[in-house]
Amino acid sequence: MIARPIAALNHATSSGGIRNHSDFSHVSCFKIIDSTLREGEQFSNAFFDTEKKIEIARALDEFGVDYIELTTPAASEQSRADCEAICKLGLRAKILTHIRCNMDDARIAVETGVHGVNLFLGTSSFSMKSSHGKKMSDVHKTALEVIEYVKARNIEIRFSSEDSFRSDLVDLLSIYQAVSKVGVNRVGIADTVGCANPQQVYDLIKTIRSVVSCEIETHFHNDTGCAIANAYSALRAGATHIDTTVLGIGERNGITPLGGLIACMVVADRDYVINKYNIKKLKAIEQLVADAVKIDIPFNNYITGSCAFTHKAGVHAKAVLNNPSTYEVLNPADFGIDRCINFASRLTGWNAIKARAEALSISLTDAQYKECTAKVKALADTREITADDTDSIIIGFHDAQKLGVSIECVRK
Amino acid sequence: MIARPIAALNHATSSGGIRNHSDFSHVSCFKIIDSTLREGEQFSNAFFDTEKKIEIARALDEFGVDYIELTTPAASEQSRADCEAICKLGLRAKILTHIRCNMDDARIAVETGVHGVNLFLGTSSFSMKSSHGKKMSDVHKTALEVIEYVKARNIEIRFSSEDSFRSDLVDLLSIYQAVSKVGVNRVGIADTVGCANPQQVYDLIKTIRSVVSCEIETHFHNDTGCAIANAYSALRAGATHIDTTVLGIGERNGITPLGGLIACMVVADRDYVINKYNIKKLKAIEQLVADAVKIDIPFNNYITGSCAFTHKAGVHAKAVLNNPSTYEVLNPADFGIDRCINFASRLTGWNAIKARAEALSISLTDAQYKECTAKVKALADTREITADDTDSIIIGFHDAQKLGVSIECVRK
Repeated sequence: MIARPIAALNHATSSGGIRNHSDFSHVSCFKIIDSTLREGEQFSNAFFDTEKKIEIARALDEFGVDYIELTTPAASEQSRADCEAICKLGLRAKILTHIRCNMDDARIAVETGVHGVNLFLGTSSFSMKSSHGKKMSDVHKTALEVIEYVKARNIEIRFSSEDSFRSDLVDLLSIYQAVSKVGVNRVGIADTVGCANPQQVYDLIKTIRSVVSCEIETHFHNDTGCAIANAYSALRAGATHIDTTVLGIGERNGITPLGGLIACMVVADRDYVINKYNIKKLKAIEQLVADAVKIDIPFNNYITGSCAFTHKAGVHAKAVLNNPSTYEVLNPADFGIDRCINFASRLTGWNAIKARAEALSISLTDAQYKECTAKVKALADTREITADDTDSIIIGFHDAQKLGVSIECVRK
Repeated sequence: MIARPIAALNHATSSGGIRNHSDFSHVSCFKIIDSTLREGEQFSNAFFDTEKKIEIARALDEFGVDYIELTTPAASEQSRADCEAICKLGLRAKILTHIRCNMDDARIAVETGVHGVNLFLGTSSFSMKSSHGKKMSDVHKTALEVIEYVKARNIEIRFSSEDSFRSDLVDLLSIYQAVSKVGVNRVGIADTVGCANPQQVYDLIKTIRSVVSCEIETHFHNDTGCAIANAYSALRAGATHIDTTVLGIGERNGITPLGGLIACMVVADRDYVINKYNIKKLKAIEQLVADAVKIDIPFNNYITGSCAFTHKAGVHAKAVLNNPSTYEVLNPADFGIDRCINFASRLTGWNAIKARAEALSISLTDAQYKECTAKVKALADTREITADDTDSIIIGFHDAQKLGVSIECVRK
């Protein structure tokens, strides 16, 4: 029998993960446009004063995101002043602002000092009816006018449809081809309502890739839980840029989270990610933003969640003690995080108890470790137990063995 | 020009979402195996006493999950007693227990009264080296022996590999074909480390679909954020059952969350989901489990997160006031949840302020709404504002208009 491991058909990483790449894949050269200071400001809880915006922008820059997207300067006077202030920081990351596709907003945007302007305009029938009320012919005319105006000032320009996955395909291809021909730097594809699945993303991006010659930026809302997988799928199909926010904050329940994208991409191409981004800063930047918008980091947050590298069941603990890669596709050390074996439960196993005993400098026979484990399980059947409870049982069991007596109660 | 809307190429739902289905798709007839009382018990914080397990089992049954999976009765005495107790409840959902693939555990399991036994055995090189230490020939022998034993007692039987996506493909197909031939009810495919992406899932499930005649259960960990998309991809490729836990709790940062799967599947086939599952119970069951394991519901939780149906930016608010589907692919009313327009920020727009004024029985001209909105934005530029602040500005503005004076300060 000839062995054909699945991993060998794909891209194997040093951590044992697998990802398959297509010919036009940008998985190994993707760029991040972080929108915490734009999409993130649209999160219901968010209020960022100037000082906080600057602190977040500096932290994103230190993390290494390629672009930082800011709220339109047309939103309010302070939004304009903050945009100008962040442009003047001299960050390595390029500064973008995200504006409605009209000349009034464009005139304000180009005066702020931004490196690029991210235009958006709804192209679905929903948007055309309930939002801006324009027809597609008007969309074309307005888009080309604004693009020409911004380009003339040597500022990067992106044109994005809104709600791309509920737009007419011919309408979409037609407008993207038109804006590509006049030389936009990027087109943007947005799943504004979070309805797309990865196959649809792959198909649409691949089709758009065939009609435009510019970069392709993508923006995925997470209403149906596909925002990270959609970003990965977009890169496989030829997209070049992914929009993120720290912790995924944004309208409704948000977009592709920076940490979640990093988790996914580390498995896809660890070398690219760890050489380009300062991923040990992830935890700090998440805490900074969580504090700013007064939320707790979710218990199940990617990479930095409280239990992301905690192993509990006996089968898992045993294998992780032998080789962590058995149950880990990410290496917590890459992120400056520790792994944890939770040995204080009825699901524990004797290998975990043995490891804990050895950490306490206690040595027993295998039969004794198993007997000691049974005592831990028996107590854990009666109530929630702690690591201290378990240590007490191990130490008490050891003492009793030395004295040749049986011990049934927990050492206090 | 012939219009070819993307939505028309796929499956359009009444809520405006789109999903494409393949020929062997089980998207419209999937089943849920909820594992909150097995995988969820492996979540680091989880301790469920008998009473809590029964409360959760009843809630899952009321929600309408097809199967409830329980911790192996071999884990501890109380685990066995709890398994027996839940089997005796007479729930509509079938009860499974998840056991290591060995005769000792199988003998205990079949005595508990379960409807089915879910066997698992590691098949990756990692598992074979660091976990059970068996060779593939031993895996076959043991699996067939245990399957025969369980089947002889007229109990449903599933055989699952562990870490399927890092296993040798020939090994996998060989064992699945063998267990299918002896008549297992289901084979299980598990992304135990959370490394797979949706395309890999689709490819592997489609391949397995071609070598087995039984049902296909899938289990996706969420370390790299693809667990919901992978479940959807698996169903498209011919998988029949998806493992979930409430809030996704499990080893590390968990698996496909029940609520996230429902969000995704409502967009795929709303009629199937709302006729089969009692989705208005989602919020209550999530709160029950969150309280039991002492966690907060994440701010960005699917469907039930605090802001899942909150709209803030002016462009969004305006369109949602005209037609919520413009920025919502899920209807909050399906889940017994209200939507919210956050009009108290610098990002608000005059349509939102107009709607709020009308709710306060205040009528102004469009020019006045715009002037009033500018005042709201000006205050929101100086500090975080509340709905009460905004109401004060609107009421103050209205009073001033009536009196013919200008008002610059916020009404207290």
